[in-house]
Amino acid sequence: MKAKTKGKVNQTQAAIEAFLSNETPMRAQRRSYQPPLCAVLKGGAGATRPMPGMELEVLKAARDQLPFVSQNRLLEIVPRQEKRPDRPRRIGVVLSGGPAPGGHNVIAGIFAAAKRAHPEHRVIGFLGGPKSIITNKHLEITAEMVAHFKNSGGFHMLGTGRDKIDTPEKMEQCRQTCTALGLSGLVVVGGDDSNTNAAFLAENLRDIGTQVIGIPKTIDGDLQVPGLLQIPFGYHSACMAFATEVGNLNSDCKSDRKYWHFNRLMGRSASHIVLEVAFQTHPNVILIGEEIEEKELTIHNVVRLIADVVVERARMGKDYGTILIPEGILEFNQEINVLIIKISHIIAAYNREALEEESFHKLSFEDQVQFIDNNDIWRDYDSRVFLGLPPELQRGLLLPRDSHGNFQYALVNTERILLGMVATYLRKQRGKGIYKGTFRTQNHYYGYDGRGTFPTNFDCDYAYNLGHAAFSLLNAGATGYMAAIKELHKPMEDWQPIGIPLAPLMHLEERFGRLELVIQKQKVDLNSPAFKILAHEREKWAVEDHYRFPGPIQFHGPGADDKPITLMLNALGG
Amino acid sequence: MKAKTKGKVNQTQAAIEAFLSNETPMRAQRRSYQPPLCAVLKGGAGATRPMPGMELEVLKAARDQLPFVSQNRLLEIVPRQEKRPDRPRRIGVVLSGGPAPGGHNVIAGIFAAAKRAHPEHRVIGFLGGPKSIITNKHLEITAEMVAHFKNSGGFHMLGTGRDKIDTPEKMEQCRQTCTALGLSGLVVVGGDDSNTNAAFLAENLRDIGTQVIGIPKTIDGDLQVPGLLQIPFGYHSACMAFATEVGNLNSDCKSDRKYWHFNRLMGRSASHIVLEVAFQTHPNVILIGEEIEEKELTIHNVVRLIADVVVERARMGKDYGTILIPEGILEFNQEINVLIIKISHIIAAYNREALEEESFHKLSFEDQVQFIDNNDIWRDYDSRVFLGLPPELQRGLLLPRDSHGNFQYALVNTERILLGMVATYLRKQRGKGIYKGTFRTQNHYYGYDGRGTFPTNFDCDYAYNLGHAAFSLLNAGATGYMAAIKELHKPMEDWQPIGIPLAPLMHLEERFGRLELVIQKQKVDLNSPAFKILAHEREKWAVEDHYRFPGPIQFHGPGADDKPITLMLNALGG
Repeated sequence: MKAKTKGKVNQTQAAIEAFLSNETPMRAQRRSYQPPLCAVLKGGAGATRPMPGMELEVLKAARDQLPFVSQNRLLEIVPRQEKRPDRPRRIGVVLSGGPAPGGHNVIAGIFAAAKRAHPEHRVIGFLGGPKSIITNKHLEITAEMVAHFKNSGGFHMLGTGRDKIDTPEKMEQCRQTCTALGLSGLVVVGGDDSNTNAAFLAENLRDIGTQVIGIPKTIDGDLQVPGLLQIPFGYHSACMAFATEVGNLNSDCKSDRKYWHFNRLMGRSASHIVLEVAFQTHPNVILIGEEIEEKELTIHNVVRLIADVVVERARMGKDYGTILIPEGILEFNQEINVLIIKISHIIAAYNREALEEESFHKLSFEDQVQFIDNNDIWRDYDSRVFLGLPPELQRGLLLPRDSHGNFQYALVNTERILLGMVATYLRKQRGKGIYKGTFRTQNHYYGYDGRGTFPTNFDCDYAYNLGHAAFSLLNAGATGYMAAIKELHKPMEDWQPIGIPLAPLMHLEERFGRLELVIQKQKVDLNSPAFKILAHEREKWAVEDHYRFPGPIQFHGPGADDKPITLMLNALGG
Repeated sequence: MKAKTKGKVNQTQAAIEAFLSNETPMRAQRRSYQPPLCAVLKGGAGATRPMPGMELEVLKAARDQLPFVSQNRLLEIVPRQEKRPDRPRRIGVVLSGGPAPGGHNVIAGIFAAAKRAHPEHRVIGFLGGPKSIITNKHLEITAEMVAHFKNSGGFHMLGTGRDKIDTPEKMEQCRQTCTALGLSGLVVVGGDDSNTNAAFLAENLRDIGTQVIGIPKTIDGDLQVPGLLQIPFGYHSACMAFATEVGNLNSDCKSDRKYWHFNRLMGRSASHIVLEVAFQTHPNVILIGEEIEEKELTIHNVVRLIADVVVERARMGKDYGTILIPEGILEFNQEINVLIIKISHIIAAYNREALEEESFHKLSFEDQVQFIDNNDIWRDYDSRVFLGLPPELQRGLLLPRDSHGNFQYALVNTERILLGMVATYLRKQRGKGIYKGTFRTQNHYYGYDGRGTFPTNFDCDYAYNLGHAAFSLLNAGATGYMAAIKELHKPMEDWQPIGIPLAPLMHLEERFGRLELVIQKQKVDLNSPAFKILAHEREKWAVEDHYRFPGPIQFHGPGADDKPITLMLNALGG
């Protein structure tokens, strides 16, 4: 082969290999982004001082179970005047619960803050979630790892998990791990349950000198503290990923004028995601679980609410539209919730007295219904409600419970059931001559793809600053706190890092039949400016095609530094 | 109220209103993007000349039905030496079939080329697809409309539709519309069926002086002409939208290590989309319909193919992964296809002799099966295949046919059926001690959201140049051609606009029981460099986590000007 030909072959081969690499331009580009720090954190790890003007109440149960950390007072982080001499320390970090965009930046923030404070500080990553604190499965985080994962999505730098440290034995093993590793600090990145873990770890690791700080993470957006924590990290990116998809469906349905798109969005206990995606996309129908609960709407009311918009638009010749449904909509439905609780109770009672092979779910559907109907706690009213539901939902309500006896909401294909009920209702309206349109539908569920997206610039910056804030709190001797940033709606320069004591966030909640101390989830506040504005605007959005097309998340140019609209509206409107 | 306070209130009100506008930063940004032109088109509308070295054969049926346009020879567009004097002309444009990203740029291209050639040229947009040529529903396209919609997704500037101009009456009405509007040209933007429409329109509007040019559009990517048209516009953007989503799932599943994600991707007749998304994301299992067809794989083979990867990964402790499934997978399955054809035949025969209220689908499922089983064309082998399928698929195969008697693939939830079959197979493997993993799954269908996405820079440029090429062809007197761009893999400067005669693209296809002349869809070529490379790489992707994370479509920075990987590999390898 001639040298020239061979050179060309090699060149072609190299080009092909470049196309087969799993290095994307996006990853390379994102690695080069350096999230900036707010003014307070810019100069190095800050000091802490009590923050006046806000008294947080602590439940008696929290004072009893967390006698030490329940004494914590709200802290603000301020620039440190003189640099403190320090000894080399080791700080652990663990990712917990579902992945959320920005997790890697929390680690990058802790790492950068630690190395800046003392080049001999070391950061230890626990692998695969909290369980690995128990089993001591870890690795040391290096500058190379941080550079590789910075600003990227997912939690795969360390992995994650859902284990709770809920027994004295597990706690003892954690103590052993932290002692063995000589950890002076431990940062727990997670949602309400993980921050509950953090509080108990803080209480129990105090005497071995391991301080514990939580970081507020959850795409659901339900980890909030009024006046102190506007939103956790991860929420904005996931909402923007869903908004891209719903915005694209706006564009498609307005072009094709053929389909109603039912979009179920992740977020079981609160409808924050639906609220933000609604502001990002202006769909035709928006269901907010908290409103359904507050107004005690039945499922038939909800069906009617959707169908009325379909009928109204059909009159205008618009047989298309987009609808947002929160994943947890059934939980907000008083009537259905009562049925679920009663049926769970009846199934549990039956199974307690039956052999495994004769369990409730071995009965035929008809026999199951019969048995429920004969139970003392089942009223005529329950039967009327139950029999008024479509068969798919009836069967859904009878599905086997999970190992704790809980109803499995995720197994019920809510958007398809609602869609079926709307179709049935519309057939009746057609019979009466009220509806003359064509009702063709597509249903979608968006969740996991949003959890895995690259974080927006806002989440990159926010998570990175949270990592630095967590280090400041550790460095100042704090434990049993959640690192947070106040004033997120202001320019980043003016963000205010704080430490929120974990104990006052706790309330008592029934879990597996007993009251447990856990951090309270924050639902959509129907008196918030954002919700009130939505309630006003949605009537226009229902009939007009006021669609908003946010497009794919951008990292450069106009809009790249945008923040959640709900955050901004809540800060603006009073 | 003091002036200062009032000023602040107004300021707040203005800020809130800005957040509620449906103008997004993205739309504003995209409007400012001016797609460049290739060298040939830069200087104004080009001239045409026969392109040597390529002889295209024309079927006898095409010569018979399209006696005039079947004489067309392949044209290349070249810069025009001197500007031709011209009279003001009117050109119509119609969007046809499903929306594809870039459609608005075809219109922008035609408009810019026309106005540059003569400021009095006018562009007429037909509203809501080809039907509006019949009914003469149109508007005049203005510079403001073009500026508003340029580089945006969807087809909602004009709307779209699926009507065919397939009777002499409809054709006559089209002739009347074109005469009434005084159209000298008509551009049809669409897929195989729409370009078939274009050929017949060209043949029939010739004598009234309306030239007709088609534009290759379809996200499915199956409108290709080997050596001349590498890919239609819209394909790249839709693939990138799907790749964002699948890449995010890669990231999520690798973090959570908990789920197998089954992703069904739009694209019924060919698996081009799966091929491109596979190169963009490196998932663990990739099903290509054409390969299943070629290798005559049964559905059980396919299930085995998936399950083997699940088992292998479970051995490595990886109970997670991503799987790509082409929407039309059942069509590629020889065995299932035979059942579908026979069942359709049997149902049709039954219904011909039955009253409406006694139609086949009024029978119970068991009676339906019984009746099919007794039919002469149904062999024992068919029964064995049928009874070996899971009940959900059996019921799927018996679903009512559409108004033309065709099987409705879209009604069958293929990914869920496959997933169920894999789960069943894995249970057996577990019984034998071969499989010890946990098989938890999530299924996704991505289609409409990709159709509606903002077009990538590549599609913006491609569609805009196609619009200019169409105008050049009209300006040079051509009719019965599809505008195309050769050498798409080269720098845009070197793109080569051409006119492909429509007649040689036609073949005979059975539609509604009779042979019709239509443009042939192009399937994935198993001998193409891209497929061969995939076949080599996928073994590594199956077991290693070689995931690629393309991230959201970017319009600035590295990667923003990327082209489809399959296009590049096919051009490079060879």
